[in-house]
Amino acid sequence: MDIKQILYQKRMAKNFTSRKEDYSQWYNEIVIKADLADYSAVRGSMVIKPYGYAIWEMMQAALDKKFKDTGHVNAYFPLFIPKSFFSKEAKHVEGFAKECAVVTHYRLKNDETGVVVDPDAKLEEELIVRPTSETIIWDTYKKWVQSWRDLPILVNQWANVVRWEMRTRLFLRTSEFLWQEGHTAHATRLEAEEEAKKMLGVYTDFAENFMAMPVLQGIKTENERFAGALETYCIEALMQDGKALQAGTSHFLGQNFAKAFDVKFLSKENKLEYVWATSWGVSTRLMGALIMTHSDDSGLVLPPKLAPFQVVIVPIYRKEEEKITVIEKGKQIKAELERVGIRVKLDDRDTQKPGFKFAEWEFKGVPLRIAIGPRDITNNTVELARRDTLTKSVTDMEGLREQVLDLLDEIQNNLFAKALDFRNTHTTVVNSWDEFKDVLENKGGFIMAHWDGTSETEEQIKAETKATIRSIPLDYDNSEEGVCVYSGKPSKGRVVFAKSY
Amino acid sequence: MDIKQILYQKRMAKNFTSRKEDYSQWYNEIVIKADLADYSAVRGSMVIKPYGYAIWEMMQAALDKKFKDTGHVNAYFPLFIPKSFFSKEAKHVEGFAKECAVVTHYRLKNDETGVVVDPDAKLEEELIVRPTSETIIWDTYKKWVQSWRDLPILVNQWANVVRWEMRTRLFLRTSEFLWQEGHTAHATRLEAEEEAKKMLGVYTDFAENFMAMPVLQGIKTENERFAGALETYCIEALMQDGKALQAGTSHFLGQNFAKAFDVKFLSKENKLEYVWATSWGVSTRLMGALIMTHSDDSGLVLPPKLAPFQVVIVPIYRKEEEKITVIEKGKQIKAELERVGIRVKLDDRDTQKPGFKFAEWEFKGVPLRIAIGPRDITNNTVELARRDTLTKSVTDMEGLREQVLDLLDEIQNNLFAKALDFRNTHTTVVNSWDEFKDVLENKGGFIMAHWDGTSETEEQIKAETKATIRSIPLDYDNSEEGVCVYSGKPSKGRVVFAKSY
Repeated sequence: MDIKQILYQKRMAKNFTSRKEDYSQWYNEIVIKADLADYSAVRGSMVIKPYGYAIWEMMQAALDKKFKDTGHVNAYFPLFIPKSFFSKEAKHVEGFAKECAVVTHYRLKNDETGVVVDPDAKLEEELIVRPTSETIIWDTYKKWVQSWRDLPILVNQWANVVRWEMRTRLFLRTSEFLWQEGHTAHATRLEAEEEAKKMLGVYTDFAENFMAMPVLQGIKTENERFAGALETYCIEALMQDGKALQAGTSHFLGQNFAKAFDVKFLSKENKLEYVWATSWGVSTRLMGALIMTHSDDSGLVLPPKLAPFQVVIVPIYRKEEEKITVIEKGKQIKAELERVGIRVKLDDRDTQKPGFKFAEWEFKGVPLRIAIGPRDITNNTVELARRDTLTKSVTDMEGLREQVLDLLDEIQNNLFAKALDFRNTHTTVVNSWDEFKDVLENKGGFIMAHWDGTSETEEQIKAETKATIRSIPLDYDNSEEGVCVYSGKPSKGRVVFAKSY
Repeated sequence: MDIKQILYQKRMAKNFTSRKEDYSQWYNEIVIKADLADYSAVRGSMVIKPYGYAIWEMMQAALDKKFKDTGHVNAYFPLFIPKSFFSKEAKHVEGFAKECAVVTHYRLKNDETGVVVDPDAKLEEELIVRPTSETIIWDTYKKWVQSWRDLPILVNQWANVVRWEMRTRLFLRTSEFLWQEGHTAHATRLEAEEEAKKMLGVYTDFAENFMAMPVLQGIKTENERFAGALETYCIEALMQDGKALQAGTSHFLGQNFAKAFDVKFLSKENKLEYVWATSWGVSTRLMGALIMTHSDDSGLVLPPKLAPFQVVIVPIYRKEEEKITVIEKGKQIKAELERVGIRVKLDDRDTQKPGFKFAEWEFKGVPLRIAIGPRDITNNTVELARRDTLTKSVTDMEGLREQVLDLLDEIQNNLFAKALDFRNTHTTVVNSWDEFKDVLENKGGFIMAHWDGTSETEEQIKAETKATIRSIPLDYDNSEEGVCVYSGKPSKGRVVFAKSY
């Protein structure tokens, strides 16, 4: 490492809060300084910057392929939902018709004070900017479904949604966010239940194999269930500060929305029946989860499968003739790596020094850096630096492509292993209320504890400790019965408690 | 053609209006019966159905690649824009702060009458649902730009926008529509002008080579210019009813938005200067253009490059053992075609007869149909049917893949040639006002006529005939001077008049 680089990195580090100092501040600084997102003039809304959006696009592409591979198609439904639709499903209205953006007028005009809302252009019925689309979609499905031949409907939508927020946290809590919402319609209960579970599996696969983020699959308690669902399946991830983050949900909606919007079909047996439903979604919140799972005190760390650039090549030169040779070699390496689908950035900017480039791409989480200088040309070598371990090695140009491919795999696997190890060491089985509070305050993480199955106990625990039941885990050996850590009443199995985002 | 197929097609045809009978009704029926889009419960909003959305996804993918190949990146900006932003650019407010959806409240509540807007949750400043994003984006760019090193900014956004409409026409005129909007920032006037022209070229290339739709490149007159632009470049296409459709625009915005939002940069010469801007967009309107350019009285016709399915395979069988053999062969052919990237649908539905499937896929515009029955298995043949010419041929199984590839190219080229021929025969040079009116009423199409260059004449012609100046054409030999067909005053060149969508 040359002196300039050290200076640049120190300067960068000086302006960057560590996780220990202030985790929340650390997160905000990564989001803003790594050019992922920024606040906007509209309270509660964010701007997703090109580098952040490129990561979201990688996520979208991977998820969209999985949806299509499992038989789903995309469609688009209106942004605006008539207010009355929210009253149609009793529980749904409680959950969603609260913090909504309400459109009341459809025209502006000029008067002496400037641009004002035209009072003559008041809507008869207010329109709600969708917080989720079950109601408008089921109102549409009514037209699409007559017979069992029209089923199943396996539709997904990529869209923006709005749920009003007063306190903004970029990616984690914003009034407007981007997401996908799947809405499926089925002839039988069993088929809908299987769909809800299948999509939970798709999310799990994506979280673990693309985001390198281990997740616990589980079922939400009644308190935490989606408004209008019979069952909510979820995946929960553990962040480095020991707080849980809900990373995706898949709902079995029963016939609730079919009944609310009168969607019936003629079955094979020629009987008129209500349609069975699911819905499932993940959002730009995943960006927050990705950041908080892997990043460190040197900035963002990206798993290779979701990195817009998997490799950055930084040419190093002093004299003009060195520049030509070194950049030419950089282009060759780039072309060779791209031939096998590796995403490469050649940073040939004249306006910045190598040390600055090293620090910038390290902060932006590019998995591998290749530095190449005049001596490398002579020796037929390059310098390879890994973002995950911050280690460097000089390597022969021969076989570079295979080495890069191997390293990208290794980094992907290493990030998952590290995160899994963190989760394992931060998952604690507790058997008493004192132990529960002690672990929650002093260690954090997932707490596996017996619970008596009542909403009252769940609410009291939340009120006393801020911990919620993240899920009744699906893939946890839960054969042993016991007594609730809080109430002492009988319990049929352990659930996962944690403080959460 | 067997008797069933004839019957099915007759039945389908009976329910389908021809272009001659009622062009507008013909269009609506294609959109709805080919499952492209539908009306929704919200006046002015449409539902884009899966088949229609799949075409839009093909368009998006092709455009997005072109944008990225020309150095652009995607980002995302807020849906809501503070009302005051619209007042900042004087002309922009006139053009856009009119028919807008206005958010005035951010909460609903329950009272005795049901769900109502909470009067306590009134916004201090109303928010406008973006009709276009220049204002919010330039407010953001202010934070991104300090020095010439930060330029150019080459950003595109895929998003939904809202411009209130009372009369809905699916894809052509809806309150909410989907689009992309590019917003670029440059250090020099020349660079911004070149960008605006370059993106017009990208749109032209997409329209002609993907949509198989010939377009005229041109410049808008002052009257028709984008609100806030110094120059609006456009591409204009001609529909089969002789009306023009604006298919894309690219604006050179000068320094108007930089001045309105105070976006300055320190130049290489160390001077503080305002940034130069462009914006450019195409929307789901292109779906309407695609439909009206190629479709016929048998339904939708899709160019192969944008068809979600380029080939549909329909198995024909009576007995169970025939079914097994025929479907097995169908799967083989599908796999073989897919190996070279052809998009294939094997319609193995048990619930529908072949005649129904033939009619359905013909109506949905699939470029090529392969029918395969027991006799084909014996003879090692298939039946190939082209959607563009409605011709059929029996062909040998050997070399099928190459034949399909050739035919897809031929269909793509044929559709363009047909559309170009239509445009050429419907482009008329006129030299008098009587001739102008006669062509406009009795023939339609593009009218190349001299115009005196004044807004007054342009407006009078529009008031008398509904024809507007579509553009001052860029690629038309316009060396000859003349006199305005309306005013008789001197003219420096011909412009393109037409009635339009």
